[in-house]
Order: sequence, then structure tokens, then C-alpha cells
Amino acid sequence: MSKSQPPVFGAIPGISPGHEFANRLELWGAGVHRQTQAGISARQGAGAESIVLSGGYEDDADYGDVILYTGRGGRSAETGQQVADQELTGANRELVRNITEGLPVRVTRKVTAGGSSFYRYAGLYRIVSHWAATGKSGHRIWCFRLERIADQPLTEEMARAAGQRELFGQLAWEPEVGYGAAPRRETTTLRIVRDTTVTRAVKKLYDYRCQVCGVRLGMAETPYAEAAHVQALGAPHHGPDLLENVLCLCPNHHVLFDMGAFGIADDGLLLGPPALGLPEKLSVHGKHRIAPAFLAYHRQHFYEPNAGRVEESR
Amino acid sequence: MSKSQPPVFGAIPGISPGHEFANRLELWGAGVHRQTQAGISARQGAGAESIVLSGGYEDDADYGDVILYTGRGGRSAETGQQVADQELTGANRELVRNITEGLPVRVTRKVTAGGSSFYRYAGLYRIVSHWAATGKSGHRIWCFRLERIADQPLTEEMARAAGQRELFGQLAWEPEVGYGAAPRRETTTLRIVRDTTVTRAVKKLYDYRCQVCGVRLGMAETPYAEAAHVQALGAPHHGPDLLENVLCLCPNHHVLFDMGAFGIADDGLLLGPPALGLPEKLSVHGKHRIAPAFLAYHRQHFYEPNAGRVEESR
Repeated sequence: MSKSQPPVFGAIPGISPGHEFANRLELWGAGVHRQTQAGISARQGAGAESIVLSGGYEDDADYGDVILYTGRGGRSAETGQQVADQELTGANRELVRNITEGLPVRVTRKVTAGGSSFYRYAGLYRIVSHWAATGKSGHRIWCFRLERIADQPLTEEMARAAGQRELFGQLAWEPEVGYGAAPRRETTTLRIVRDTTVTRAVKKLYDYRCQVCGVRLGMAETPYAEAAHVQALGAPHHGPDLLENVLCLCPNHHVLFDMGAFGIADDGLLLGPPALGLPEKLSVHGKHRIAPAFLAYHRQHFYEPNAGRVEESR
Repeated sequence: MSKSQPPVFGAIPGISPGHEFANRLELWGAGVHRQTQAGISARQGAGAESIVLSGGYEDDADYGDVILYTGRGGRSAETGQQVADQELTGANRELVRNITEGLPVRVTRKVTAGGSSFYRYAGLYRIVSHWAATGKSGHRIWCFRLERIADQPLTEEMARAAGQRELFGQLAWEPEVGYGAAPRRETTTLRIVRDTTVTRAVKKLYDYRCQVCGVRLGMAETPYAEAAHVQALGAPHHGPDLLENVLCLCPNHHVLFDMGAFGIADDGLLLGPPALGLPEKLSVHGKHRIAPAFLAYHRQHFYEPNAGRVEESR
């Protein structure tokens, strides 16, 4: 795993699905896969930005939009066969982090035809689950299910071939959702694709602890929390994707907050029916200023209209 | 709201997006929208199966893939203007249920051109959020954000126009995800699209209480819980979508279960590190038989390989 370069998640500008590369060096030069040999480009503690499917793992299964991907390790360099158990460490652990952080991974396939081969960029995939299995070799392998992210732009050539843009009116004809340096864009995906800059910052600040109940959903190295926008993103709310507008919550309190079951006063007091068992105040880190205007927006549009409607929680 | 007919969620066989209907009666006859006048076809306690956008509400905003939809009520029959506050009751409450239950809604638009009008089926949308706002009239309105479900089939005509099916290779060229009577199908959507028959059954059986911690995430009339498959759905697990393979969990315990942070013994004992604060046993309803084979599958592939990896939870 590279330790020097910051990971770049999401689409590389100018590289659309279908883009072809003559060899691994070209792929590396374009910034699509910044490893010249390894199949996984990941950084410790940050997740995996890219994988290359080269047909080297006997337990991989490629169904196109769905890929069952075998983790790294335990393979003989000579025969390509699995000769030892795989461990959930290193790059494999970073693939798990993509699941818990909702990070997309770039997928490139090695294509072999007519005696020669090249590489074709397939687009962005989500890693949706992982599990252990016994591979064909009898050794333990770690498996990952990848699913292609649906709302990706068609290439320009494909659009031309189709002749009419209107044809795609019902598809999400939108530039790629931005990650990292790219600006955040609206998406039709709910609770899955997230801006990584702000949401990772708030989760890091609270070490994945819920600001309401203090729970830290714990896998030792890959904890899970959700970033909740106070003034919602998207039309018509258009809340900004800034640290001042985001909370670190467990999934349960995220659901309750978004549904307006509780609100937050400007001074952090938690407003809600006794049945919810809320603590008196929101936990707020010294470095985290939550703008009162966003809290007021949430109270006005999400919480207050619902006040008193919650019957019970436990 | 209709009280006699069971709701039918999802696509109507034979009716693809783009299908046109001369009038409301035809729309009714096809089973797309089973109300001849009302804009929302819903059943009390079951959710909304269909809406018709007829341009009657001054606060609606139609962006195509995203629709900001105004709830029902408070409108003058003569002028179409908002003359009173809207309440979060009746059909409006059922639209909220679509959010908490993940139910899709059929959307049909009234199209007016050249002095005449007709209706065009737009496809399935998710209702992703609701909030209160002050409408143009100064009265309180209830608003809903609808987002088009991306993975829907193109119509046959659109495919022919495009000339080559391969063009769509990167899109999810799949029959519609089944709801209700239709068989369940694999989907690329994570934690959003659910089979309603089995998942609603398990949530109803437990009255939306988590089988691990007992929490009931409570909105008074629209509680929220998640159905968790024990042996995962989809390749390569191919767990069945049966009540014997599903649990009613809160989002927090759903995440932990899917990530393998805890497992369940055949007798219901909860297996996991003390830091998770798990109770001794899973709560199991007298009418709910969870098949041991599925629990064993989860332990073998998801839990046991991870055992001991959880550091802390609270």
C-alpha cells in the first residue's frame, strides 16, 4: 500500500467508463491505478481507491455489474493458486473500510483477446459486503461483493451513438458525483454516496461516536458512524456541505433526526419527547462549531411541525 | 384513501415508463392509479402506491428525476390555491410511510400540449424525505422529495431507437425489482429497495422493535425498523427471502450484524464481545422460527472469522 500519496476516490477527470489503456504503466500514468503491479491501490487507514481485475485469482467471479472479488494474499506467485489462508489485514482491511465509509472504488479490467491484452476502465463500484469463504484450494479467502454505481455518465461516444440525448432523459444524466477535491453534487442515491472530505472530518473529530448517545459502532479498525446534515442537502433545502452543518450520529439517531423526531436548540439542548430517552445535551467537540441558523432550519422544517408526535422509543 | 383493495407497489406488468393514457379512467383501468380523482392512491396504514402530478398544486416543483411534491389538502377546489394549512394525516401520513418502509411510488404526469392533455407514466420513485414549509399562499404545506429509482428498464421502443442493446451494457438492464406479488430480484441498490412481503411481515410481528436491544425507533404512526437477512441475499450467498431467514433489527444492530460484529447461536444466544453490551439472547416471537442453517451460515462466513476483532462499542 502506498503511504505517501493521498488517496483519490471517484472518477478521474477525463477518464470515462470504457476508456482503454495499453498496459499497466499507462493506467498508472493516468492516475487511475497508482500501483504498477498490485491489484489493489489502497492507503493504510484511508481505504482502497482502485482495483484491477486481471484474472489472477481463481475464486473471483465477474458478472459485470456485480463482481465477487477475492482479497489479497496467500497466492503462489508462480501458479496463481491459493496456497495459504488470507488475512483480513493490509489492503484487505482497506477494502472493508470502503464498505463502512461508503467509498467508491475504481475498477479496471484486463481484457485479453486475439493473443494480446489491454486494460479497460469499467467505472466506479461500491463495495457492499465482505465475508470469509473456503476457496477452491481449501484455504480461507476473504471475499468482497462489488456493485456498479448506476448513476455514472455515459461516454461521449455512447451518447453520439445513441443519437439523441432525450433518450436518456430518464437516466441520471449528470457529471459524476464528486469525491475528494471535486465539488459535491446532488445525487439520486440515498444514504450511500457521501462527500468524503466533510463527512470523514466530522467522524474523525468524534472518533465515530454518536453525538447524541455516545455509541461507537465498533469494528476494531473499521468503526461505523454516519454524517448527518442539519439543514438537508439538495433542493429545496440546499444546506451546505460544511462541517458547521454536519453531525456525527449513529444510524439510529440519524434516522430519528432526519424524520424530525427530535431537534436541537441553539445551545445544544436536545428537544424531544421523554420516550426517546435523549440525554440533556448534544456532545459537541471544542473544535466543532455548529451554526445556529442550520439548527433553526431543522427545527422549523423538520422537528417542530412533528413535535409531540413521537409516542415511544423503548 | 381506498380501504378495500390491497395496495400494489412497484411496476405494473406491461406498463413501462413512457406509457401513455388518454385519461384518468384509462389510468385507473390499467391499475396504475386506482383513484379516478384524487392525486394520491394510498391505503391507511399501508402506504401510497401511486401519485398523479396534474399541475394542480402551486408549490409543486418538477425537475424530472427529482420532484418536490406537495401533500394533500387545504386547497380550494375552485381556484386550486392553498387556502388553509395542511395536516400530516391521511394520505400525507401514508407518503411518510413510504419513506420509513422504503416503498416505491408510481408517478404519472399529466401532459398538456396543443390544447389537449393526456397522462404519461414516469416510472417508480422513492420518497426520500418530508418537511414542513410555508407555501406561496402563506399556509403551512407538507413537502416530499421524490427521486426516480435509477435501475428501471427502458421501454422497448427506446431500446429499438438506440439500435443496440450493448449500448446499455453498463446500465442495469434488468426487469423491475419485484414488490408484492412479483418475485424478488437481485438489485444493485443497498439497504433501500426491499421486498415488502417478508420484510413487512417481520417488522409487523415485532411491532418494529429490535430483536437485539428492544428499541422501537418511534414516530407515533410511522415507526422505523429494518429487516436483516441472516444468510445474505444475492450471489454468492443466495439466502432465501423467507421469514425463517430474516430478523427485525434497528439500524445500529443491522450494521453490526452485517459486518459480522456479532453472531447468533442456534438457541438464540448472542455471541459477541462484552463491549457490545449485547443481552444474553435474541428476542424471538413464538410465531417466528429462525432456521438454524441460516444462523450457522452467518456465523461461519460473517461472524466467526471476525470474532475477537471488536474492540469496543460504548
